[in-house]
This record gives sequence, C-alpha cells and structure tokens, in this order.
Amino acid sequence: MSSSPQSPAAVTVIGLGPMGRALAGAFVAAGVRTTVWNRTPGRDRELVERGATGAASAAEAVAASPLTVVSLVNYDASDAVLRQDAVTAALKGRTLVNLSADTPERSRDTGRWAAEHGIAYLDGAVMTPTPTIGTPQAVFLHSGPEELYREHRPVLDALGGTHTHLGEDVGRAAAYDIALLDIFWTSMAGYVHALAVAGAEGVSPRELAPFAQGIGAILPPLFQELAEDVEGGGFSGEGNPLTSAVSSMAHIVHASEAHGIDAGVMRAAEGLARRTVGLGHGADGFSRIAEVLARR
Amino acid sequence: MSSSPQSPAAVTVIGLGPMGRALAGAFVAAGVRTTVWNRTPGRDRELVERGATGAASAAEAVAASPLTVVSLVNYDASDAVLRQDAVTAALKGRTLVNLSADTPERSRDTGRWAAEHGIAYLDGAVMTPTPTIGTPQAVFLHSGPEELYREHRPVLDALGGTHTHLGEDVGRAAAYDIALLDIFWTSMAGYVHALAVAGAEGVSPRELAPFAQGIGAILPPLFQELAEDVEGGGFSGEGNPLTSAVSSMAHIVHASEAHGIDAGVMRAAEGLARRTVGLGHGADGFSRIAEVLARR
Repeated sequence: MSSSPQSPAAVTVIGLGPMGRALAGAFVAAGVRTTVWNRTPGRDRELVERGATGAASAAEAVAASPLTVVSLVNYDASDAVLRQDAVTAALKGRTLVNLSADTPERSRDTGRWAAEHGIAYLDGAVMTPTPTIGTPQAVFLHSGPEELYREHRPVLDALGGTHTHLGEDVGRAAAYDIALLDIFWTSMAGYVHALAVAGAEGVSPRELAPFAQGIGAILPPLFQELAEDVEGGGFSGEGNPLTSAVSSMAHIVHASEAHGIDAGVMRAAEGLARRTVGLGHGADGFSRIAEVLARR
Repeated sequence: MSSSPQSPAAVTVIGLGPMGRALAGAFVAAGVRTTVWNRTPGRDRELVERGATGAASAAEAVAASPLTVVSLVNYDASDAVLRQDAVTAALKGRTLVNLSADTPERSRDTGRWAAEHGIAYLDGAVMTPTPTIGTPQAVFLHSGPEELYREHRPVLDALGGTHTHLGEDVGRAAAYDIALLDIFWTSMAGYVHALAVAGAEGVSPRELAPFAQGIGAILPPLFQELAEDVEGGGFSGEGNPLTSAVSSMAHIVHASEAHGIDAGVMRAAEGLARRTVGLGHGADGFSRIAEVLARR
C-alpha cells in the first residue's frame, strides 16, 4: 500500500476548507495523484479542474490512495467522517495523517482508535497560514511513529516548507500547536485591544502599526531568554521585576477602562502577575509566572 | 536657562532605579554635566564615581541644570517629588521631561500643573529595556511643544537610539506607550502560559522556544495587515474567520485546564472573540474585535 519511488505518489485529502484546498492544491501542483472529498459538495470543483479526482464518498476517497491527509475544523469533525464503519474499513492497512487542530488528548485518542482498526497513524499541525502552503515559508509539525513519518515524508514534502518530526508520542504535534497558538492568539488579542485604546486616544492604526511592529521585533529574543530562565530556574528580574510589570499593566487597565474599553484580557494577565507577586516573587522576572502557573 | 552650543550641556536626572541609572549613565558617558538625585540615598554612588554630581535634595538637583529628566515608577511617585513647594519653585523657568510611565491623563494633568507653575514641560516614554540606553537600539517617544523638543533634542540625543516627537498633545507619548505595552505584556502573558502548558505536555522551554520565535516573527507583518483592516474598515476574514479563531482558542483553554493550569487570559480573549461572533461578525477577521471593543 505504501508509495514507493517506482509507483506514482498518491494522496487523498479529506476536508476542503481554505487549508484543505491549499494542501490539495500543493499536492496537485507537485504532480501527486490527488483525490479529494468534502462533506459539502462543490468545494472540489476548482481542484478537479486543476487535475484532482473528486470522490463520491469519504470511503471511496480514502480507498483511492495509500495516504489520506485530513484537514477539518477539529477532531469532532474528523471523527464524524473517519469513524463511520465504511471509512474506517477503507482506511485499514493505509496511512492517515490528521492535520486538523485540536488538543493533544484528542490526537492520542485518535491514535488509539487507529491502532485498534489497523490504521497507520501520524498526527500533525500546520503552523503557517494558507498562502504559505506549497512555499518555503510553510511550517509543519508531525508526531507518531518515526518510521511511518520517514516513509511518507517524500509525499508530504510536496506541501513545501519545513517539516519537523517531534517524537513518537502522537500527541506531541498538538502539544506544540496548542502552546504556539496560545502565544499567537494572546498576542493578537493584545494587539486588537491596543488598536482600540490607541484609537480612543486619537492615535490611528496606521500611526501605531510601525511601533507595534517594533514591539513584535523585540519579542523573539525575549522568548529565548525567558525559556532559559524557566529551564534553568533562574527567574531573574534584574532591571525588570514583576512589581514594575504589575504597575505597567495596571496603567493599561486604567487607561482602557477610562475610555469604556473592556480590559478583561489585561485584567486577567495582571491578576496572574499580582498572584505571583503575592506569592513572594515580586523581585523575580516575568518568567516566574510560568513556574507559578505550572504548580499543582 | 536653556542649554546652547556655547555653554556645556547639563542635565539633572531624578529617580535612580534601573532605568534612571541607565539614562544618567548615558548622559555621563556622552560628556553631559549630569546631576543626580534619588529618594533612597546611595543609589548615586556608582554614577558619582563615573563623574555625575550627587545632590542633597531634589530641589538642589533640579536647580543645577536647565533640563531635568524624571524616571520614576509612575506619576504618583513623580508628583510626590516634583509637587513639593521647594522643587516646584526650583523648576520655574526650567524644562522638565518626564519619562516615567503612566496613563495619558496623568501626563496631561502634569502638563497643566507645569503650565500653572511656569515650568516648560515635555512628556516621554522609553520603549526599550535598560541595556539599550545609550545604544542605537534605544527607542524614545516624546510629546508636548515641538519648539521645546527641538531645543532640548541635542541633549536628549546623548541617550542614543531613535527619538520621535509624536505631537503637541502632551499625553500622546503616554498613549503610544500604553498601547505598545498592552501588546507587549499581553504577548508576554501568552508566552509564559504557553511555557506552562507545553511543560505539562512534556515539551521543555528550550524545545518550544525556537518555534515560539517563529510565531514572534510572523506577528509584525500581521500587525500591519490588521492596522490596514481597521483603518479601512475591511475586516476581511478570508482564510481565517473569527469562527476558526474561536475554535482554536477553545482548544487552548481546554488543554490548559485539563492540566489544572489557569487559562483566565485565554478565556478572556476567547470571550471577546465569541462576543464579536455573537454580534454577527463570525465570517470577519480578528481585526473586527478592535472595532467591537471601541464601540460606545
């Protein structure tokens, strides 16, 4: 069933939302024989015009290729497709790569289900937006049996970008995904709030943006520094103790609420920082919050 | 009273916390005649050894220079120093630059107080950490009378880096500062939370950090894109609608709380996104939240 350099590579893509269409499009563009299926019909039209093969059912779709890549909104959606008897039976002896996003426990649960049904299973996460798919900018994370990953890597390479195998624990890609999206969505929430507060002060989005990009640029080296702090247990607050952070965060809450703008996100962040100060860590750096959050 | 190319430049620095010491140190290093004062004595020792002049009182300190730069924890602290009768009297006819951080309304209040007492006043914000002071990486924002800013700019240039005058409204530097720190602290809160969740999943800080830096790198161009969205009223969610964001944020809350890790910040952010979806903007992009937050 596995693809080899002798047989033409073939893949099935289940789920044709924006990401699924981008993935299928990259396979087609790379000359991989691509079968596509989506619950809502018609989503495959453009892909079929470009050379993909439409399937009448999910079972027919997965039966068409040794490798099926799933891109759905979450694991409730992928379970609803994959755990139908006909689809599960068609997947037996084939490989499934689920690139849908959900929690590590859902990935591990899917790994157990796959093992019970004789399905080879890899879990994965797409870390970059749809326009990057098929380009060097794409970033993919994978977890599960390394041998299986190596076997299918040549086909997955059609998606472009960087592929990293994170380990045999099938939940590991989702664990990274969750942590990275935690950073992403929290930062985005901070940014849209900043745009609202700046606007109330008469500072336009375009006036703020260059300075916001400057803040964005100082984050990556700080991320490395805080990781070293947490890993080493140093938590040094020299030059920037938590007590200063709390004072700064309180100003933001005050300025926001003075304009009637909800400051719930910053209130929650300030609360975490104050809790950490209250536990006696006021002279430590912001990294101490990670340790306090992880306490049982 | 003002410095001129003929007379040697002179400055007083009030407040010798980590930032105040860095500012005073940069003035000394640039050959500016520098007088320093701090409420807690002894903080000036190293600076005096390097050539600064210690003062016995705040009034004596401000009387020593045409320009006083204040760096205290907030405007409660700077009011407590500057609004003493002897200090206010000594400041008359001189220029005050307050680089302490607080809300725009506190800056404007200080501007009114300064005008009432014949003190020329500029407000400012230091956007980069203490090690950048005196280097090209430093970023300073200023607001208040442009002529006054131009007059003192040669001395302020001793602090290195980039100086931007944002406008005559004395609260404008604080408005930018608040908005930029909003982005900064929210992002930092997301990152330390991500480190905690990753740790609970067996992913170490050093394993996560390179990927976190990758997330940090995709933020600046997105910041520009969202600013255009909000300024133009486009709010396009093509490829990444708010409904997807909400689903992703819910996974993070779930994964965090499954490990007993407080997800209050993400819960608040998810709440904002869900409120925006509930208002009928589920197909819009994340930028729509800025518009909803700003509604009266």
